[in-house]
Amino acid sequence: MTRARTGILHTAHGDIETPVFMPVGTQATVKGLTQRDLAEDLGVKILLANTYHLYLRPGHELIRKMGGLHRFMSWPNAILTDSGGFQVFSLSELRKIDEGGVTFQSHLDGSTHRFTPESTVDAQLAYGSDILMVLDECPEYPVSHEYAREAMQRTLRWARKAHEHFRARMETMPTRHALFPIVQGSMFADLRRECAGALLDLDTDGYAVGGLSVGEPRPLSLEMVEATEDILPRSRPRYAMGVGMPAELPEYVARGIDMMDCVLPSRNARNGCLFTSEGRVIIKNAQYKDDERPLDPRCTCYTCTHYSRAYLRHLFHAGEMLYAVLATRHNVRRYLDIMAEIRHAIRLGSFPEYLRCVRSTSAEAG
Amino acid sequence: MTRARTGILHTAHGDIETPVFMPVGTQATVKGLTQRDLAEDLGVKILLANTYHLYLRPGHELIRKMGGLHRFMSWPNAILTDSGGFQVFSLSELRKIDEGGVTFQSHLDGSTHRFTPESTVDAQLAYGSDILMVLDECPEYPVSHEYAREAMQRTLRWARKAHEHFRARMETMPTRHALFPIVQGSMFADLRRECAGALLDLDTDGYAVGGLSVGEPRPLSLEMVEATEDILPRSRPRYAMGVGMPAELPEYVARGIDMMDCVLPSRNARNGCLFTSEGRVIIKNAQYKDDERPLDPRCTCYTCTHYSRAYLRHLFHAGEMLYAVLATRHNVRRYLDIMAEIRHAIRLGSFPEYLRCVRSTSAEAG
Repeated sequence: MTRARTGILHTAHGDIETPVFMPVGTQATVKGLTQRDLAEDLGVKILLANTYHLYLRPGHELIRKMGGLHRFMSWPNAILTDSGGFQVFSLSELRKIDEGGVTFQSHLDGSTHRFTPESTVDAQLAYGSDILMVLDECPEYPVSHEYAREAMQRTLRWARKAHEHFRARMETMPTRHALFPIVQGSMFADLRRECAGALLDLDTDGYAVGGLSVGEPRPLSLEMVEATEDILPRSRPRYAMGVGMPAELPEYVARGIDMMDCVLPSRNARNGCLFTSEGRVIIKNAQYKDDERPLDPRCTCYTCTHYSRAYLRHLFHAGEMLYAVLATRHNVRRYLDIMAEIRHAIRLGSFPEYLRCVRSTSAEAG
Repeated sequence: MTRARTGILHTAHGDIETPVFMPVGTQATVKGLTQRDLAEDLGVKILLANTYHLYLRPGHELIRKMGGLHRFMSWPNAILTDSGGFQVFSLSELRKIDEGGVTFQSHLDGSTHRFTPESTVDAQLAYGSDILMVLDECPEYPVSHEYAREAMQRTLRWARKAHEHFRARMETMPTRHALFPIVQGSMFADLRRECAGALLDLDTDGYAVGGLSVGEPRPLSLEMVEATEDILPRSRPRYAMGVGMPAELPEYVARGIDMMDCVLPSRNARNGCLFTSEGRVIIKNAQYKDDERPLDPRCTCYTCTHYSRAYLRHLFHAGEMLYAVLATRHNVRRYLDIMAEIRHAIRLGSFPEYLRCVRSTSAEAG
């Protein structure tokens, strides 16, 4: 039995069928794709942008002045912004956490900045994000149970502050936004359950499961999502942050997850790793030199309906930008197709068979 | 009085209105644009690809095996390929010219190769180019009259050989192609006139004026085109290779030119120099930081109808690929729009006024 479910996520920029995958537009762009490619060609309904990156450049005040992120980047659909926590802890070399927030140096120019639970809500409201995340502390992997508990409890206190600040801001805000708190607790199930339980008090529009994809073994990520599955309210969307590989998408859905985001489809595309319905294609390989077939014969994306593997390989070796453009378009489409298959299987009641099939294919592929 | 004229260039991949600008797709791609962007969105009817680059990578035999360049790169319209001569003389560090051809080292891996008038025709037929160029020697600037004469005479002999070989190949070729010889002679009008006169004997489908944009002052390039204007047959299209800046396009047309190609719109786009109907925009400049206006308010391209200067500037500073994608799309469109304006003015009989207007605007802009 699985906890897979379909649903609708309501936002000020449209309703979104879940489970949904959100492409990552770190700096207000999904690398290599135009907003038209994303919205019209790929049918993306929601994308993720990074609070940390946009705060440093071009700055949340500029984005506010430009009418918000949707207008600034000419994006008609929904936007979710992360809290900035993950980037502060993974990109910034110098950072100092205290009860009130985190002080850090920009990875761009070394300048000093400070994020607080309140300031990151304000930055995200300046962006006009449809879904905001609370500032969290995302510990590296592994950490001691003691440190994980300390960080989790601080994250909880931050969530309460952020939530209170957000509620106060919403009273005078004409637009609709949602704020999701983030379940932390490193790889300790007891801490994650404690965290999730405490977050229920906030009665938020949705909940995120964070602190994953920080170097832990993949089965552990799934275990951590499972740990809080029966605690988080089933009436609210649940978002697993930063996951995962194609075969993992249905695994998260099977554990009650409704939303996911990941840089893998775009980053792997640029590095030459393409996801197809028949498995991975490493496009630089000599075997594709004169391969006239489309990248994925079953895919109907622009790349697969117009170009051969031989041409993609040529562009990759020639270092041509069009390679990244076409490869990203396909990989993002592959992720969206998998999500559509998942929703379809859930609706037909055949998701358990779908999951078994993905597992056996994935086991074969090693 | 000008020699500006409109016309139709007939190719196996469609008829093309002239004067026409050909975007440059060096390695079988116009950097940052998909073939759909080019053909459907921008309405490009003919593009240029580089014989030298494609010969080295992926190789003309591979392209032949893949069904030719149109099929390999999924390009529905016409393709003109250059002779490779210009690249051999500008990119290859070691090259040795003899009567039969030129031996050179690849700029990619130092391997040794040889181009002859016959072999470059064969390579271009392997590509399936609609319009082929003969191998020419493109001397650097400046050279002595003596050397320029020697190089021009060799280019003439190569043109005769290439033409003979092409005619023989055409007898068994089911598809239609054209071969253009290239007028050379460095910056010496007498040599260019001698060259053009001698090329008339070949009675080819068109003529190219080469050896320009090699570092000479811009007025000299125009002077060299003018030098052969009354010699080349008016019944055939004339192609000025590798020119020019936006304000120069009508100058070439005024001197009887029907076809042009240039990397400037795409290269300058990537470097942050954008051509608009109001002059150049250097997008990195601080003045565009919060500029909500479209890049060019009079332009109807995808970039100008969807994005602000502030967003383009952000993408440029963030080093995002979408910057190059959007900037190239606009700059190429700007060139195509200029050519459309030129054709329109010629048809209305107002080209002399159009040219005067461009000259005075351009003089103002310095």
